[in-house]
Amino acid sequence: MVNHMTGELLLMIPGPTIVPSRVVRAMSAPILPHRGKVFSEMYMQQIERLKKVFRTSNDVFILCGSGTAAMEAGLANVVGEGEKVLCLVNGKFSERFKEIADNFRAKAIVLEFEWGKAIDPIKVREAFLEHPDIKAVTMVFNETSTGVRNPVKEIGEIVKNTNAIFIVDTISALAGDEFDTDGWNVDICAAGSQKCFAMPPGLAFISVSKKAWKAIDSTDSITYYLNLKQYKDDKAHAPYTPPVSLIYGLKESLDIIEEEGLEKRNERHRRLATIVRKEAKSMGLEIFPASEEVCSATVTALKVPDGIDPAAIRKTMLDTYGIVIAGGQAHLKKSIIRIGHMGIVGEKEIYATLECLKKTLDALRK
Amino acid sequence: MVNHMTGELLLMIPGPTIVPSRVVRAMSAPILPHRGKVFSEMYMQQIERLKKVFRTSNDVFILCGSGTAAMEAGLANVVGEGEKVLCLVNGKFSERFKEIADNFRAKAIVLEFEWGKAIDPIKVREAFLEHPDIKAVTMVFNETSTGVRNPVKEIGEIVKNTNAIFIVDTISALAGDEFDTDGWNVDICAAGSQKCFAMPPGLAFISVSKKAWKAIDSTDSITYYLNLKQYKDDKAHAPYTPPVSLIYGLKESLDIIEEEGLEKRNERHRRLATIVRKEAKSMGLEIFPASEEVCSATVTALKVPDGIDPAAIRKTMLDTYGIVIAGGQAHLKKSIIRIGHMGIVGEKEIYATLECLKKTLDALRK
Repeated sequence: MVNHMTGELLLMIPGPTIVPSRVVRAMSAPILPHRGKVFSEMYMQQIERLKKVFRTSNDVFILCGSGTAAMEAGLANVVGEGEKVLCLVNGKFSERFKEIADNFRAKAIVLEFEWGKAIDPIKVREAFLEHPDIKAVTMVFNETSTGVRNPVKEIGEIVKNTNAIFIVDTISALAGDEFDTDGWNVDICAAGSQKCFAMPPGLAFISVSKKAWKAIDSTDSITYYLNLKQYKDDKAHAPYTPPVSLIYGLKESLDIIEEEGLEKRNERHRRLATIVRKEAKSMGLEIFPASEEVCSATVTALKVPDGIDPAAIRKTMLDTYGIVIAGGQAHLKKSIIRIGHMGIVGEKEIYATLECLKKTLDALRK
Repeated sequence: MVNHMTGELLLMIPGPTIVPSRVVRAMSAPILPHRGKVFSEMYMQQIERLKKVFRTSNDVFILCGSGTAAMEAGLANVVGEGEKVLCLVNGKFSERFKEIADNFRAKAIVLEFEWGKAIDPIKVREAFLEHPDIKAVTMVFNETSTGVRNPVKEIGEIVKNTNAIFIVDTISALAGDEFDTDGWNVDICAAGSQKCFAMPPGLAFISVSKKAWKAIDSTDSITYYLNLKQYKDDKAHAPYTPPVSLIYGLKESLDIIEEEGLEKRNERHRRLATIVRKEAKSMGLEIFPASEEVCSATVTALKVPDGIDPAAIRKTMLDTYGIVIAGGQAHLKKSIIRIGHMGIVGEKEIYATLECLKKTLDALRK
């Protein structure tokens, strides 16, 4: 039995991920006054460095909150009450955009796709023909709930020729899979600290294009804490006290990302994903997504063999091996497991996980 | 010249405050899966302990965000579009409640009081006679911008006999000054980690009374990330990924608070405030608040002598002594300085600050 509070669990969930000791140490530095010059300069530098990870020349802001805060900020600043939002839904997180839109009384037009399949750009084109007054389009790049990687580039090609603002959640992929904010015409991109950045949870990142600013400036948004206009007014400081120690952690995390190189980092994630799929198949497990082509680089969803309860797999993995993997969400709770391979994990963690998964399945099959 | 990044600045601002090394070490523990049993139990325990600090049997929730997030959560969950909010304003932070109300199109009725004076309960009584349909009353207990402590208890006595929800920001005082959520009839109380709790910024706390829940349940709130209904649904977990390492820090911070004892901790803050006022007067500085009776226990605002720029005082304090004090906000920028004495500071830090302030003033007067 692993002592969870003092032992070192191997976190193979799709976030939060393992935090490198360098980042932990960086976060231990004394608190600086958040309105002082030294902190402000450091803060602005991290924003410039984040832009390189986003591959954008747009504004980027750091929010104190979970990834959901960035999703709400993206949508609630752009779309007013009664305005149309096209929500592309094929999993739990893309569904969340719809819930957010409903909450502040926007008019959500939902295009549903089967969980496990990728979003189909043709349907998006059709939706625009039917609703030329769509104000924003929301989608998730890397659907954490299903392990599906969606065609952001293709949909960006469609949205860029409309008046709609293209809002993408790349929370569980940025800094772990190729993502090109500007090249793919993403107006608002939401990311978070606790996934591929290998930081603790608590920071969310958001990029805002010129096209998005026009929509924001003409929207009388109801949100206060997440109001992007407040962030725009003074870029040298966060409008509300930022989580200082997490910003230190971000600096170290960006050091690590730059040392590895963004492309190499993305390649590593793709390589690990390939290993997971190959080995999982060799032990008789099917991948949940519809095809290899749509599989995520950072999280792999696997179907559980008939007669085995995903909860039992997770329990054995945790209790016997100290390895944490994720289950399915919503209607997938009884049918899949998910292995996160994001952040700083490498081959050794992947092989440890797969070997222990194999032994777990063997034990449960007996 | 102090090296701000590696040296240990003496933070005497009204938040963020110095973080004890015990808390820093606690935050270095490996990340636990946030939906796992071990983390969930630890999380719920901290909520129970927070209730003791709030002195409440109401629900308490932990938000990932700054104190402003808790202020918005308090107001936006309770008051709908067009409904009346009585905003008691005598400083920058009480003004913020009004801005939040305006933002989501509630009808703010503002009772303004001179900055430096306390809120007058008689005016509140009059406002209720004029507007019996007030849905909520907002106020700040410890107005950080002016160093004024407002009569929450007296106003609570008025509000409790109405249908209005009493929303109080005690961000810069809770765990440093006497505050009795239930005894003072506070329906919603907002607090934060980076003030008297002596933690890094990033967590906000909010308590919700039964009376407030009724209002929340009958309000179709537009906020999503800060929607309290989502927190109520599953008290064993935060609805969105919580900042795990900060929760570890909170546990340690609550250990320290319990070891010292809440009452002793409040006494210490009052004692330090008394020393600051006495010594400041002895060096010819006037306190900014209208009287000793309304002075805060956690932050002291002092008038700057004619002909001296507050910015020059702060610069010398920082550059020569490595001590950070705060300036005034809004129209008080040119006329006051503020010394925070909250969290883990004691006599030694207070005397260091006052002695260096004296030398700074002497130097600037030459």
